[in-house]
Amino acid sequence: MDHAYKTIELTGSSTETVEDAINQAIARSNETIDKLRWFEVEQIRGHIENGSVGLFQVTLKVGFSLDES
Amino acid sequence: MDHAYKTIELTGSSTETVEDAINQAIARSNETIDKLRWFEVEQIRGHIENGSVGLFQVTLKVGFSLDES
Amino acid sequence: MDHAYKTIELTGSSTETVEDAINQAIARSNETIDKLRWFEVEQIRGHIENGSVGLFQVTLKVGFSLDES
Amino acid sequence: MDHAYKTIELTGSSTETVEDAINQAIARSNETIDKLRWFEVEQIRGHIENGSVGLFQVTLKVGFSLDES
Amino acid sequence: MDHAYKTIELTGSSTETVEDAINQAIARSNETIDKLRWFEVEQIRGHIENGSVGLFQVTLKVGFSLDES
Amino acid sequence: MDHAYKTIELTGSSTETVEDAINQAIARSNETIDKLRWFEVEQIRGHIENGSVGLFQVTLKVGFSLDES
Amino acid sequence: MDHAYKTIELTGSSTETVEDAINQAIARSNETIDKLRWFEVEQIRGHIENGSVGLFQVTLKVGFSLDES
Amino acid sequence: MDHAYKTIELTGSSTETVEDAINQAIARSNETIDKLRWFEVEQIRGHIENGSVGLFQVTLKVGFSLDES
Amino acid sequence: MDHAYKTIELTGSSTETVEDAINQAIARSNETIDKLRWFEVEQIRGHIENGSVGLFQVTLKVGFSLDES
Amino acid sequence: MDHAYKTIELTGSSTETVEDAINQAIARSNETIDKLRWFEVEQIRGHIENGSVGLFQVTLKVGFSLDES
Amino acid sequence: MDHAYKTIELTGSSTETVEDAINQAIARSNETIDKLRWFEVEQIRGHIENGSVGLFQVTLKVGFSLDES
Amino acid sequence: MDHAYKTIELTGSSTETVEDAINQAIARSNETIDKLRWFEVEQIRGHIENGSVGLFQVTLKVGFSLDES
Repeated sequence: MDHAYKTIELTGSSTETVEDAINQAIARSNETIDKLRWFEVEQIRGHIENGSVGLFQVTLKVGFSLDES
Repeated sequence: MDHAYKTIELTGSSTETVEDAINQAIARSNETIDKLRWFEVEQIRGHIENGSVGLFQVTLKVGFSLDES
Repeated sequence: MDHAYKTIELTGSSTETVEDAINQAIARSNETIDKLRWFEVEQIRGHIENGSVGLFQVTLKVGFSLDES
Repeated sequence: MDHAYKTIELTGSSTETVEDAINQAIARSNETIDKLRWFEVEQIRGHIENGSVGLFQVTLKVGFSLDES
Repeated sequence: MDHAYKTIELTGSSTETVEDAINQAIARSNETIDKLRWFEVEQIRGHIENGSVGLFQVTLKVGFSLDES
Repeated sequence: MDHAYKTIELTGSSTETVEDAINQAIARSNETIDKLRWFEVEQIRGHIENGSVGLFQVTLKVGFSLDES
Repeated sequence: MDHAYKTIELTGSSTETVEDAINQAIARSNETIDKLRWFEVEQIRGHIENGSVGLFQVTLKVGFSLDES
Repeated sequence: MDHAYKTIELTGSSTETVEDAINQAIARSNETIDKLRWFEVEQIRGHIENGSVGLFQVTLKVGFSLDES
Repeated sequence: MDHAYKTIELTGSSTETVEDAINQAIARSNETIDKLRWFEVEQIRGHIENGSVGLFQVTLKVGFSLDES
Repeated sequence: MDHAYKTIELTGSSTETVEDAINQAIARSNETIDKLRWFEVEQIRGHIENGSVGLFQVTLKVGFSLDES
Repeated sequence: MDHAYKTIELTGSSTETVEDAINQAIARSNETIDKLRWFEVEQIRGHIENGSVGLFQVTLKVGFSLDES
Repeated sequence: MDHAYKTIELTGSSTETVEDAINQAIARSNETIDKLRWFEVEQIRGHIENGSVGLFQVTLKVGFSLDES
């Protein structure tokens, strides 16, 4: 009943969609952190190249469990 | 000229896209409320399952008309 | 080393996706402004028609360079 | 001593003044809700028609008592 | 997998503690709404009487499920 | 060239208009503080009595000069 | 269906009312910009002169259409 | 009907609870100011000593009446 | 004189009080981080079970010293 | 262990640097208030004269101890 | 008495100080806009190169008069 | 094209300037983290000693690349 979580802030990117940028950030953090539980979008921004979106960049808060499994 | 609106806060969800989660919330509120007029995204968050997005959850403010039709 | 930027606020729209609304706003501003560099999403909202999303409207801050090329 | 309140969000409108738009929203919600107690202005906006204000729209939080009278 | 929630804003009160004021607001809304799921504290305030706290008032967002059970 | 200011927060009230509530707060603080220079509206709220506005309450930041005259 | 808007920030002023300050800012921007569509109040502030309001200053976001007529 | 209030910002502290820190700040300001009416919590923070909370510090806005009694 | 700090974001929980949830988060982070110095409450939320609070969840920023002891 | 603080809001100014404007505000308030303990920058703004900065104006919250020495 | 202002958002940069970045943004906008009156700092950020600050970037709101001289 | 970043929050300090406090925080984090890319100022505050600034404390978000070099 006494769960504890830690939150980190990550930015992922994609040339295609906001959803892909979110998944890229989560996949990258999943390489080193177990037990990721939730995310929350903090900011959606990106680069413009030749008059259209070159890259979507999405900044997330990602929460993971500090509990022993 | 003297229109009045009420705003409610809803959260919809989708395993696929942010747009689907928005539409799911609006479809659900449309079952009981007529004359929905506009929405505004308050928050985009979600669950992580096995290192990727398991569910997008989008919280909306949804405005509807209080005028008699 | 002494770059300067100006930021403007634009709203684009799309019947389909948030990403299309972003690109529509950038394409429109690219007609009159060179050297667009980045964007940041300020707000995602839209119209509801017949109980589903009729139009996504995305408000952006768009930054462009004031430097001579 | 254990009062409880519920808050709803409403938008009223007037072609004349901010105060009239506030009163229009309160009058409309008073038709269906007893015991309205307070309001707080969330946003003042409006339509522009032919280069001047066509309509003031004021969004309020309105609180009402959940206590039995 | 496509859960939907609605959020309402409530204020509870207690002469004793912040926790009691939260529970009072939830108990009151539980009388008319099933399937309450979570709360979030929006504001802690109160009355002062004779130079000490007379009443704690806590405003909450409370979310409940729109799904059929 | 080295002016200094102090800011205080006041709430004025009026049964009639937002502007009257602002002037009432400024008039009251002018009784004890010289050299009031500017104000900024922080919040517009009020009481509801019998289904219409009973009192407008406007909270201001008011700045005054700390310089000797 | 693919409307685009640009938003600018303006401050108007009036010795009398908040509404007059809004109209003054809109009238001034209407001299050089067609197709103004909506406004949103960002800030209400002002000067104090001899212990009462000398000038109301209202800062607005004003949106106008980028579409060809 | 034309009440006026002034708001000040105070921080109280307690080794035990948030509620005690609120009461300590109010008691201290009550020594020099009559007619305290309401408080609003601005921030809850504190010191950590030897791996647990050493001191809760709660910052409040406290409002008091400017009216003659 | 040139102290440096790092801040992390943690969520602790308790079935009883807000204060217990704060202490649980600090105790957990104290297992792996020395020299914790201060905390600041970011959010108070929780689960509702059977119409009353099932779990308080408090999110904190926790600061610790980067200095050599 | 039960320290109490009061916070006031001040604006200092300098033709040279942000740091000088901060020190000017603190020096001015130190003339009448003992036991100033900390400051926090709320806003950095200023006047423009002939196309460059004429005056930096920095608004601070300044906290001082209410404890007897 | 009926002054009107327009506000634009600019980012200036400097390898040395925050104040230089502010002055660079103002100098650049002064090339094309007369009657600049005030600025307000929105954000201070920058690039890191080889472990120290490579560039300070300061984003400002800059207000200028729309009045005929 | 699929860069990912992580952001951490740090506080640096200096007895002299805001810029020195920023550089101190970045230098300290550069000892253990490669590939620092950007910073953003979150808060400027400090200690007051004997009526003038004793220490500037600047809290930054610092972003670094998660990409393999």
